[in-house]
Amino acid sequence: MIRVGLLTDYGTRDGFVALCQGIILERAPETSLFDISHEVPPMDVRHGAAVLTRVLPYLPAAIYFVVVDPGVGTKRRPAAVRAGESIIVGPDNGLLAAGAAALGGASEAYVLTNSALWLPTVGRTFHGRDIFAPVVGHLAAGRPLAEVGEPTPVDTLVELPPLRSRIADGVVTSDVSYVNRYGNIQLAAGPDALDVLGPGRVDVRCGDVAAWATVGRTFGEVPERELVLFVDSDGRVALAVNGGDAAARLGVRSGSEVVLRRSRMEA
Amino acid sequence: MIRVGLLTDYGTRDGFVALCQGIILERAPETSLFDISHEVPPMDVRHGAAVLTRVLPYLPAAIYFVVVDPGVGTKRRPAAVRAGESIIVGPDNGLLAAGAAALGGASEAYVLTNSALWLPTVGRTFHGRDIFAPVVGHLAAGRPLAEVGEPTPVDTLVELPPLRSRIADGVVTSDVSYVNRYGNIQLAAGPDALDVLGPGRVDVRCGDVAAWATVGRTFGEVPERELVLFVDSDGRVALAVNGGDAAARLGVRSGSEVVLRRSRMEA
Amino acid sequence: MIRVGLLTDYGTRDGFVALCQGIILERAPETSLFDISHEVPPMDVRHGAAVLTRVLPYLPAAIYFVVVDPGVGTKRRPAAVRAGESIIVGPDNGLLAAGAAALGGASEAYVLTNSALWLPTVGRTFHGRDIFAPVVGHLAAGRPLAEVGEPTPVDTLVELPPLRSRIADGVVTSDVSYVNRYGNIQLAAGPDALDVLGPGRVDVRCGDVAAWATVGRTFGEVPERELVLFVDSDGRVALAVNGGDAAARLGVRSGSEVVLRRSRMEA
Repeated sequence: MIRVGLLTDYGTRDGFVALCQGIILERAPETSLFDISHEVPPMDVRHGAAVLTRVLPYLPAAIYFVVVDPGVGTKRRPAAVRAGESIIVGPDNGLLAAGAAALGGASEAYVLTNSALWLPTVGRTFHGRDIFAPVVGHLAAGRPLAEVGEPTPVDTLVELPPLRSRIADGVVTSDVSYVNRYGNIQLAAGPDALDVLGPGRVDVRCGDVAAWATVGRTFGEVPERELVLFVDSDGRVALAVNGGDAAARLGVRSGSEVVLRRSRMEA
Repeated sequence: MIRVGLLTDYGTRDGFVALCQGIILERAPETSLFDISHEVPPMDVRHGAAVLTRVLPYLPAAIYFVVVDPGVGTKRRPAAVRAGESIIVGPDNGLLAAGAAALGGASEAYVLTNSALWLPTVGRTFHGRDIFAPVVGHLAAGRPLAEVGEPTPVDTLVELPPLRSRIADGVVTSDVSYVNRYGNIQLAAGPDALDVLGPGRVDVRCGDVAAWATVGRTFGEVPERELVLFVDSDGRVALAVNGGDAAARLGVRSGSEVVLRRSRMEA
Repeated sequence: MIRVGLLTDYGTRDGFVALCQGIILERAPETSLFDISHEVPPMDVRHGAAVLTRVLPYLPAAIYFVVVDPGVGTKRRPAAVRAGESIIVGPDNGLLAAGAAALGGASEAYVLTNSALWLPTVGRTFHGRDIFAPVVGHLAAGRPLAEVGEPTPVDTLVELPPLRSRIADGVVTSDVSYVNRYGNIQLAAGPDALDVLGPGRVDVRCGDVAAWATVGRTFGEVPERELVLFVDSDGRVALAVNGGDAAARLGVRSGSEVVLRRSRMEA
């Protein structure tokens, strides 16, 4: 059975996902489709990449349609990469490199140049429909990867700029790497930051919002509405509120920086 | 394989979709279900119709369960229509006519009057569960369309009132036909409006909000946060903001009117 | 065919659902997965239980993965119950008891203690991934229920505290039991409340918001923007606004109490 997994920022209210699925099924009717997410925040390539990093190691081998594409219709390349037993198709804007890395690294990469595989008319704003879905459909129907276009060295794939975190003088300064549905704030800082900060109370600052958190292992360990600093299920340092939304509490958004230091006032 | 496609305004938080799917599967366990959208804004028949118009031409032949039903329990007719190789079941409030038109036009239509196919007790507020899902289940199990009820001429199907746009003295005045997830504003005006307006800058007015846009081909062509006026992936004239939400910027909502004219101040 | 149904509060933006589905499919590749809902409001066990109560009677026999888990990593028990021909797996916090009751009652219950079935490393914050998904995968692959852990009497399953409603002196005072996507407010009060209140107009009070509603059978029976008091599709008394959101109008939220009495001012 050929599986096709989809990740987009299309949402589901406009039918864009179903439309692309229809195009894939027309070319490969026996395909088994599954969704990773269509609720990536609009145009948020980093969020999409983080979801791929989290999820792909747990998924079956598949052809992946991954489209978060703020540069659609401009000069970013449409591409396809092989990683492990899977193939990932989408815009070369950081998504493909992140997805391939989550599967052990890209072994081949191609720029989609074989327009014979696309819809007859290609516009400037919906390459999911016009290019990526038909290419995925052809691959799902058994067409070899090498036919999608011109090979390109895997080290030419675009990577997202790295996030920053540093530890100095007992102070951890870290970019926010991800905010999830619950409002939990994942930091770029690794778990070693907790050796510097814990145990006990930690002062937290984000812009002009100050708060404190308790170093713990899960939300339920702290009283309701209090902040906990913990290693989350991705193995990253994160802030959460027991029964609440830490990102809303701290005013964190994508691109925010958080500063943590051991509290002078013990709990 | 029998496919059943579903479009509703049920959302997914309440389980209404799963419940209807369960009713369909009970009658036709081998059915392959797929979702078009369940995030049609509540009671927004026009949005649902626009999604069907966009998506159905790309989907496989199927039995469609389409339910956006503000008039449930009142005198609007429950109906089923055949269009091409597909069947569309739902309330006769504009959805069915739009779906059938997207598939080349209705060839047969029936009012659902055969209550032997329904759940034993039919309430006044959830005909998706009580009438439409069991009828779709029976059709998916192979029951002939003509058994669902009384035939009705296809030209009796309810159509949505047409949207308005006009071009006069170099000014384009157009209803908003659709706002998508990204906040892009699709207009009723056709692509010929751009011949009148472009190239260059266009003054945009919506109610008491004034702005200007650049005529272009895709969002990425204009600087971040600027408005672009372009022909969208449905082939309609639309306004978008590069990296932003045009509907929020202009205060557009369903039913808004937008006025466009060539800007006297060139870029 | 083995079916696995999923209900969570994970949302779909973070990929948590797909990750758990991948874990299930790895252990049982032939499984047919279906979603009940992933949009249960975060940590809202009562909402999740209400969805199960509504939906399970209509669904095919399945193994259910139900995870709304505010107490993850604390001492709440992970468990699995058999009810009818189905099995329900998740945290023992009220979800399992509600789901089992909707299927006629639990016949067996087990605490998940057989860690050989779990992922090798179990954290404190994502038991859906580390415990529940792999256990569901093993069950879907044919492993007997009794192998998941230690049996526990079914009457030890945690039940949610009951909601309250009372009728006295012609006044109905009721907890809100559920607010759906449309903003319809379902009350704990049973349909007999309408015998006391109707027909005609009813005064409605919620906190310091006062309004009136008409007793009716469906939204479309009252003028647009007016409140209707009716028996909803779950067979419960509910308040809705024709073409609007009753919960927003009345300021109702989870845990609110509503007071209804026959209006002295007739319509």
